[in-house]
Amino acid sequence: MILATLFSPLSLLLLLFFSFSTLSFSHFVPTFPSPSKFHPELTTQLSRSSSSSSSSNGLYETKFFTQTLDHFDYTPQSNHKFQQRYLFNDTHWGGANNNAPIFVYTGNEGNIEWFTQNTGFMFETAPRFQALLVFIEHRFYGKSVPFGGNREVAYANTSTLGYLSSTQALADYATLIIDLKKNISAIDSPVVVFGGSYGGMLAAWFRMKYPHVTIGALASSAPILHFPGLVSPYVFSDTIANDFRSESENCYNVIKSSWKQIEDAGKTDKGLKLLQKSFRLCKNYSSDDLEGWLQSAWTYTAMTDYPTPSNFMNPLPAYPIRKMCEAIEKEKKRSTFEKLYAAANIYYNYSGSATCFDLDDHSDPHDLGGWQWQACSEMIMPLGVRKESMFPESEWSYKSRSDSCQFYYNTTPRPHWITTEFGGYHIHQVLKRSASNIIFFNGLRDPWSGGGSSSRRPKVLN
Amino acid sequence: MILATLFSPLSLLLLLFFSFSTLSFSHFVPTFPSPSKFHPELTTQLSRSSSSSSSSNGLYETKFFTQTLDHFDYTPQSNHKFQQRYLFNDTHWGGANNNAPIFVYTGNEGNIEWFTQNTGFMFETAPRFQALLVFIEHRFYGKSVPFGGNREVAYANTSTLGYLSSTQALADYATLIIDLKKNISAIDSPVVVFGGSYGGMLAAWFRMKYPHVTIGALASSAPILHFPGLVSPYVFSDTIANDFRSESENCYNVIKSSWKQIEDAGKTDKGLKLLQKSFRLCKNYSSDDLEGWLQSAWTYTAMTDYPTPSNFMNPLPAYPIRKMCEAIEKEKKRSTFEKLYAAANIYYNYSGSATCFDLDDHSDPHDLGGWQWQACSEMIMPLGVRKESMFPESEWSYKSRSDSCQFYYNTTPRPHWITTEFGGYHIHQVLKRSASNIIFFNGLRDPWSGGGSSSRRPKVLN
Repeated sequence: MILATLFSPLSLLLLLFFSFSTLSFSHFVPTFPSPSKFHPELTTQLSRSSSSSSSSNGLYETKFFTQTLDHFDYTPQSNHKFQQRYLFNDTHWGGANNNAPIFVYTGNEGNIEWFTQNTGFMFETAPRFQALLVFIEHRFYGKSVPFGGNREVAYANTSTLGYLSSTQALADYATLIIDLKKNISAIDSPVVVFGGSYGGMLAAWFRMKYPHVTIGALASSAPILHFPGLVSPYVFSDTIANDFRSESENCYNVIKSSWKQIEDAGKTDKGLKLLQKSFRLCKNYSSDDLEGWLQSAWTYTAMTDYPTPSNFMNPLPAYPIRKMCEAIEKEKKRSTFEKLYAAANIYYNYSGSATCFDLDDHSDPHDLGGWQWQACSEMIMPLGVRKESMFPESEWSYKSRSDSCQFYYNTTPRPHWITTEFGGYHIHQVLKRSASNIIFFNGLRDPWSGGGSSSRRPKVLN
Repeated sequence: MILATLFSPLSLLLLLFFSFSTLSFSHFVPTFPSPSKFHPELTTQLSRSSSSSSSSNGLYETKFFTQTLDHFDYTPQSNHKFQQRYLFNDTHWGGANNNAPIFVYTGNEGNIEWFTQNTGFMFETAPRFQALLVFIEHRFYGKSVPFGGNREVAYANTSTLGYLSSTQALADYATLIIDLKKNISAIDSPVVVFGGSYGGMLAAWFRMKYPHVTIGALASSAPILHFPGLVSPYVFSDTIANDFRSESENCYNVIKSSWKQIEDAGKTDKGLKLLQKSFRLCKNYSSDDLEGWLQSAWTYTAMTDYPTPSNFMNPLPAYPIRKMCEAIEKEKKRSTFEKLYAAANIYYNYSGSATCFDLDDHSDPHDLGGWQWQACSEMIMPLGVRKESMFPESEWSYKSRSDSCQFYYNTTPRPHWITTEFGGYHIHQVLKRSASNIIFFNGLRDPWSGGGSSSRRPKVLN
């Protein structure tokens, strides 16, 4: 329960996959929630915090480590340094003399404070293990931006952005952890790495590639198999459809049949006005925009469908998909649009403060933008929708991804690199003989579970 | 016996460590043997070979693979391609249908043909295992030179040479092997990697980092622990001294006491003439040059002190150190210089064809030059000599290495990178839980055995 509640909401990868593909499943634009609130149990502590750039906020100290731009080459550029942020909490640490453990969060594609504040699991288990807590920010995110911290330069083009990669991030973690242990004279303290979503993939890969640095990894909702040739591109959308269908067949049917109605409405001025009114939109938007907005709601809710109230992407009640389906079922006589609005409102306006919805709001409070680049270089995670699903049908197309990447970044992805570097085929056989102490876990309602490496897999639609 | 004879002569690393340090142990200049002859058992086959650039010579076919310059970054430069050479022999292969194995030699710092021709072990075991043989050349060596194969460009400065690194080489091997298996429809054929010396380090590291690509590694004379903080810098020279001492205390004493006599002689014209005459030098050389030449002879002979005749660096008889000591002992009345000459002659002139010795001959027939760069970037393998040794005393000095690297390449090494990336501390504990199927082997007379990871270690001088 604790695991599911506090640890697995870190499933953002989907977000940016969709944002520049030409697939109908990808029509929705990633609209991030306004500045994150914190997990309820941490709120009291965090309310004491002043600013993220202070050195301590009561929950953690903020520190910086001088990191090498490129660990694997020795060109002049490779030797550039940048400041990598990490958060540090030794409240419960048993100390180096006792070889007390160090729990390290391997940061993913966003501001590390956000992940830290949503990883209560580590804070809760620290006292029991007398663990030191360290949360390391992923390069190019948050305040860990190379090229003098100058985001404009770092993100300008591939000659700088090209240093944003998973292998460099793993080497960052190894370098920082080894140095930190030396500095606090804790050479013999065992290190355990934690992570969720992409951070979970990094945690698992870190244990596989750096077993001399960490004794084990806890990888939550980590789709290390969601790569070309390893899983069906439909498993993600199938799982979401199953999640809704498990609440009620009618709920699933209402959503499934809605897309055509929205598209039809979008063809006339009158219809567009109806959409604006039905969904309380601040102005007129195309049916494509609206579809994207709704797809976001269903998808992110499925990714954070916890049995307790939570606040990772947006504030949500316990069992939010159930709540959405109840909202759809409640008054049978309402129109489809009214039903959909009632459901979407749970995701976008659970606090009830919104008066109208701005679909143009592309703000990125958690600084997740770099994932677009990662999805254009190495993170080729196929997603498609089959006709039995709840979303508009669409084929996964590598070409379409590649074309977009060429257009936006003037780059071509390396679709087979991740499986070359980290494997994936016969994963259980390989891990059995050459890795140990990796806990992969995800609920089977988690859309990413299909790309996870647990032996239990979600069922696909039939 | 076969292992020791055919497989472990690949110990060249020393060579270039010494070549630009200011230590007295490093005075000797690397003088490579004239164009390599081949291992006797392969000579017949090789005599049929025409040229190294032909596609087949009876022993192997030569092939090329289009390789990516930089696997870990996505800068425009990273995407450059180059042609990587590999040698291929399917004479004994049982075929993909039988899942017959693939034996891969992970090439080290030189022309892959040379290593192939000196790795009889793989040719000898191929029939028994019905194995396909593949020998992959290391990037920047032989014909596997990036930047259009233009050696002058590739070696011009750190902006190009910076892509010569061990991690890039391992990723090359993974990429090539996966692609090759796909092309020959042998996805399920198990791969075993082989290597000696640096190639052995690569083989072991490859199994550690790419267990999804290879099921096991045979790492011969692979000093994966010969890095700062892991072993005594004296273990290499101590082992050589012990090798000579084990033949006769007097042999060891003659060599140990020779350095002062050579230096004294070098101070006068008369003395220099005596040196030239005693050692059959083609012209006058300084005592420093001569010391380097002799140190080369003792060191390389210790590295190839096999119980059978061999021809890796130079043609040598069986038990060459014993032969050297016998030459020193033979006529007690001779001068020290005459004794030393008789011993050095075994290494430099076993065939008896040399009329005089040219100490300026820095030719590099096996194309080993890139190691100088590797020793200035990541391969910081400490070597020193204590006063009990047989060589002139000298302290290992990282600063001296670093200064040389600054001078020659305008670069500063990263002395802790190898242990960060591949580990080394508590290696047995780490390998036990996270690696398997790695056979480390070396004779205890091998100077590199002290940096190997066998649990048996050579004794050090007392």
